[in-house]
Amino acid sequence: MSRLVEMALPQKATICEVAPRDGFQAEPAWIPTEEKIRIVRELAKTGIQSMEITSFVHPRAIPQLKDAEEVVRSIQDLTNIKFRALVPNVKGAQRAIDAGITKLKLMLSATDSHSLSNANCLVEEAQNGFSPIIELAEKHGVKVGGSISVAFGCPYEGKVPLERIATIVDRYTTMGIEEVSLADTTGMANPKQVFEMLGQLKASFPQMTFSMHLHNTRGMALSNAVAALQQGITHFDSSIAGLGGCPYAPGASGNIATEDLVHAFAEMGIETGINLNTLIDVAKDVKQSIGHDGGSYMLQAGPCSQLHAKPKNQEKIEQ
Amino acid sequence: MSRLVEMALPQKATICEVAPRDGFQAEPAWIPTEEKIRIVRELAKTGIQSMEITSFVHPRAIPQLKDAEEVVRSIQDLTNIKFRALVPNVKGAQRAIDAGITKLKLMLSATDSHSLSNANCLVEEAQNGFSPIIELAEKHGVKVGGSISVAFGCPYEGKVPLERIATIVDRYTTMGIEEVSLADTTGMANPKQVFEMLGQLKASFPQMTFSMHLHNTRGMALSNAVAALQQGITHFDSSIAGLGGCPYAPGASGNIATEDLVHAFAEMGIETGINLNTLIDVAKDVKQSIGHDGGSYMLQAGPCSQLHAKPKNQEKIEQ
Repeated sequence: MSRLVEMALPQKATICEVAPRDGFQAEPAWIPTEEKIRIVRELAKTGIQSMEITSFVHPRAIPQLKDAEEVVRSIQDLTNIKFRALVPNVKGAQRAIDAGITKLKLMLSATDSHSLSNANCLVEEAQNGFSPIIELAEKHGVKVGGSISVAFGCPYEGKVPLERIATIVDRYTTMGIEEVSLADTTGMANPKQVFEMLGQLKASFPQMTFSMHLHNTRGMALSNAVAALQQGITHFDSSIAGLGGCPYAPGASGNIATEDLVHAFAEMGIETGINLNTLIDVAKDVKQSIGHDGGSYMLQAGPCSQLHAKPKNQEKIEQ
Repeated sequence: MSRLVEMALPQKATICEVAPRDGFQAEPAWIPTEEKIRIVRELAKTGIQSMEITSFVHPRAIPQLKDAEEVVRSIQDLTNIKFRALVPNVKGAQRAIDAGITKLKLMLSATDSHSLSNANCLVEEAQNGFSPIIELAEKHGVKVGGSISVAFGCPYEGKVPLERIATIVDRYTTMGIEEVSLADTTGMANPKQVFEMLGQLKASFPQMTFSMHLHNTRGMALSNAVAALQQGITHFDSSIAGLGGCPYAPGASGNIATEDLVHAFAEMGIETGINLNTLIDVAKDVKQSIGHDGGSYMLQAGPCSQLHAKPKNQEKIEQ
C-alpha cells in the first residue's frame, strides 16, 4: 500500500524541564535546597538539554523558591544544560545574573485580570518594566526570552483573542526579544485554537521562535502539543512527574509530564535526546521525594514498548 | 489579521457511550441490574444518541454482564437512543436479537495473541464464525458492525502494521460489513499513527465507515481523537467517568471519558448534541455509584467555560 497521507511533524524537538520552577513553586511543603539540587542533578542525567531552574521573585511572594541563588550556584558544573530563570523585575534579574544565570525569562500575562492576580500590576505596567531588565541583560551578555501566561484562556476572562496575543508579541519584537513562550497556564487551550493561533502568529512574526508551555488541567495538553508540532513548533516545556498544579482547580493535573511528552514524541518518531527509561526512573524518584505526582501516565501504565508475556495458550498460533 | 491557517474538522460528531459494556465489565464488584438500568436512563437524558449497552458473552466469561437480557429488555422505551450490543458468537447474537437488540457488534482482535487471550481462538477462527451471525442478523433485519481490538498496538506483539488491519477490513468488506470500529484497546496508538492509518484505510476502503474506540492508558486518547477528526472521522466511542480500565495496567486510565471528549469537541466547535453540564452531573453520579472513576479531567477541573471570580484588586483595570 502506498504512503498516501502523512502527518508532517518535525524530526526533533527540544524539551525544557520546568519542574524546578513551575513544579516546586506549587508545593506547599518546603523542599530542602539539597533535595532540589539532587533532583536537578538526576534530571541532568536523562539527556535533557534545557531547564527552567527557578524564579527570582521576592521570597515573600514564593517562599519555596527563596533559595534561588543557592540552587543556581550549585549547578554551575552542569555545563551541558542550558539553564534559564524567571524574573519578575529588574531586581530579580540582577539577582539571577549575580548568581550566574545566562538566560532570563520575562513574566507577562495576556490579561489584566491574571496580571493583577499574579503580579499585582496591569499588563501595560509589566511591559513598561521590561526595558531596564533587557538593558541589564545586554550589559552582562545574558539572553532574554519573553512569555505570555494564560495566552489561550484566562480563568477570569475566558478565551483570549488572537489579536491580544499578536499585540503582545509585536511589543516583544519591538524590544528585540527573539523567543516567546506561549503558556496555557490553566489548561484552557484546545488543539484547533493552538493550531490556528500559531499559524497566524508564525505568519505575522516569521522571525520569532515560539515555544509551548502546556498544562494538562483538562486533558488537552498532548493534543495541543501535537497541534503545535503540526505548525512546526519544536520547543516545549514540561515537568517531571507532571508537577505544578493549578491554583484554580485543587487536585487537578499540572504541567504536562515530561515523561508523557517524551514518550508520545518517541512514539511519533520525534527525537528529544532524552532517555525515556532513565526519565521514568527519575519521575518515580521525584514522586517519592515530593510525596505525589501531578498526573503522569507513564508512572501508571509505563511505555507502549513495555510488552507483556504472551498468554499460555499461544501454542495455538503455531498450529 | 486574515485567517491564514485553519484546522479543518468535521462540524458534527456522533459519540457512542460504551460504559454500560466496556466500563461495567471491568468492575469486579457486582453492579445491581436496577443500578445499571438507572445509569443508562440518566445517560439517555444527556442528549447522547448511541450506546453500547452490553455484551452477550457467556455469563461465566464476564459475570458482570450476565444480566444482558434484563438490561436490554428494560430500556426498550428509550427509542431516541440507538443501542448496540457486542456478540462473540452466533449464540450470543441469538440472545441479543431475542432481547430486542437491533444492532450487533462483532468481536475480533488484530493479533492472534490478543485473540487467544480475549476469545480463546485465533483471528482466522473468529472470522470464520462471522457468517452465521451475519445470516442470522439479516434474517431478523438487524444491523451488524465490525470491530478490531488492539488495532494500533497489541500488549503482546507491539505495533500492529497497517497491512494487517487492511487485510481484516478487506475481509469485513467481503462479508458486507459497512462499519468497523478501530479499537486502541490498551492505549498504544499515537496521533501520527492514527492519522496515517486512517488516511490509508479511507483511501483503500472509501465505502467503509470507520469509528474510533480510544483508551487513555498512556494519555494519548484525545490527541488520537483529534488526529481522527483531521481525517474526517465522525464516530467515536467513549465512557462516562472514563470507566473501563486496562487489565494489563491495574489502576491505569480507561476509555477516554465521555465528558472529556464532549468538552474538547465543544471547545473546538464540534457539535455532539450532548449537554455537557448534564453529562458532568451524570459522571459525578456514576463515580459515586461505582465508587471511583477511570480518569476524568472534567470531574477534577470542570469545563473551561467555568470561569472564576475576578481578583479583588480588579479596580486597577478601570484606572
